[in-house]
Amino acid sequence: MVQPGLAERLLTGDRRALARAITLVEDGERAGADVVRAVYSHTGAASVVGFTGPPGVGKSTLIAALVTRRRALGRQIGVLSIDPTSPFSGGALLGDRIRLAEHFLDGGVFIRSMATRGALGGLAGAARAATLLMDAAGREEIYVETVGVGQAEVDIVGHADTVVLVLVPGSGDSVQALKAGVMEIPDVIVVNRADHPLGEALVRDLRAMVTLAPQEGWQVPVLVLDALGGDGVEELEAALEAHRAELGSSGALLERRRRNLRNEVLALAGARWRAELERRLECDGGFEELLDEVVARRLDPVSAADTLTHERGG
Amino acid sequence: MVQPGLAERLLTGDRRALARAITLVEDGERAGADVVRAVYSHTGAASVVGFTGPPGVGKSTLIAALVTRRRALGRQIGVLSIDPTSPFSGGALLGDRIRLAEHFLDGGVFIRSMATRGALGGLAGAARAATLLMDAAGREEIYVETVGVGQAEVDIVGHADTVVLVLVPGSGDSVQALKAGVMEIPDVIVVNRADHPLGEALVRDLRAMVTLAPQEGWQVPVLVLDALGGDGVEELEAALEAHRAELGSSGALLERRRRNLRNEVLALAGARWRAELERRLECDGGFEELLDEVVARRLDPVSAADTLTHERGG
Repeated sequence: MVQPGLAERLLTGDRRALARAITLVEDGERAGADVVRAVYSHTGAASVVGFTGPPGVGKSTLIAALVTRRRALGRQIGVLSIDPTSPFSGGALLGDRIRLAEHFLDGGVFIRSMATRGALGGLAGAARAATLLMDAAGREEIYVETVGVGQAEVDIVGHADTVVLVLVPGSGDSVQALKAGVMEIPDVIVVNRADHPLGEALVRDLRAMVTLAPQEGWQVPVLVLDALGGDGVEELEAALEAHRAELGSSGALLERRRRNLRNEVLALAGARWRAELERRLECDGGFEELLDEVVARRLDPVSAADTLTHERGG
Repeated sequence: MVQPGLAERLLTGDRRALARAITLVEDGERAGADVVRAVYSHTGAASVVGFTGPPGVGKSTLIAALVTRRRALGRQIGVLSIDPTSPFSGGALLGDRIRLAEHFLDGGVFIRSMATRGALGGLAGAARAATLLMDAAGREEIYVETVGVGQAEVDIVGHADTVVLVLVPGSGDSVQALKAGVMEIPDVIVVNRADHPLGEALVRDLRAMVTLAPQEGWQVPVLVLDALGGDGVEELEAALEAHRAELGSSGALLERRRRNLRNEVLALAGARWRAELERRLECDGGFEELLDEVVARRLDPVSAADTLTHERGG
């Protein structure tokens, strides 16, 4: 049950209300969706930047450095970290997150981690909702980070206005995936720890790659920086501003947001349908019998799926 | 329209019928599903091995070497390569595929490439159907390979009995993803080109990692090989046999196939529903109006999704 006045308190910027609302969304509670609905008309003002890249490349450190600069300008910040669930998760991710600790006591920065729940699609939806809630709570700039090296992980930050890919020397897999077109080209590429012996070659390689990529107005910059020392963070800040300006002046921002919202609505409708189906099947011995038939090769998967779809369709 | 007798000819092992049926499935034709339905009761005998890993690590070369060995034993082979679509795809993938050319003239080997169509979910479904068709056409061993470095790519080969991850020195991102639990641990890990200066460190790192992973009977082997020269392919062959034997004796094969078929049926039902929704929306100006409301922040995405779901639900 949603607390009375939660949406109202969230709209005043109340941090506890914001935290509570995100928890409801993360837990997949209907009440979470109700809060999003109640505050949605107050969203759209925030600038959302998504960071993706392999584990351990220093995304949190980079965001922490960026937040320090933006706070100096008095901006209200939200940070959303998407953690992968792991049965034996290494310490690297936690260690990384600690970089954000310097901002924990700053009321102008709201930091939240979300763990993977169920499918990636579900997490992307929860991340999107949490971003909207932060937006409604007056966060002017929202930084969303996810850990991963595939298209699915890039999709999690796909609702951002600007997507930044962070790599380090040794990120051969990601560079190969970009070159092969397996992973979509982001808006900005950052090479962290570029002082590594292999850093120069990586930067050269990436710059050659982005010149070959189809260009539509925006030329993807490849930035070199040292997130820990702070070198190059100013250039990243400038690149983010430039991309935002380009999006705004070209009309691409509206177009991108419309496309993202279209995907969001369809994904939500699909997730709702799938959840209803799963719920129904749990208390339905008939589905296990149907599955027995499929396992025994007496009924094919397509026909079984048709049976489910038609039962549902009425 | 499906050709009369296509399923019957496929069941006799007719290569042209098999190729035609896979094209129908790839194009998303209803006729493709009809062929799968017609032959499904003749499937389940093939042993399916999935290969995943970053682009350019030599998966095709490895499969080609493995196929040479298996052909010497007289086995009937199917190879399914899942290609990512790219607006500017590099030559690396194509070059890699050429390694399979030595088997093009061998009637005992059926080789097929499939390109990414639409969402990854759709491709996973098409790959699954193509595997069933090869199985029904008498391929005793089927090798499925996909290119990618994330969980979504691993999911494409998720219907295999055994999943092999191929890495090379320089695959830092994948190792980080495995360690962090972002990517699921496969059944077998192969390090190709391990004679590279950094090869030894990678193998040591991976072996340390798999000993930390939760063990349920099967201990994930980390194999070192040279796919091009052929060194170590025998050990991979032995590891695949051992995994298959372990799956069979422990009852895990049936359990795994049941789980995979359950996911398959649910994914098919969801895809069908989503496709119907998309088709309906295309000729429905009402959806664009609904979307206009969402973009203007007058209607929230969840309510819009509810509207779609209820219209559909009747």
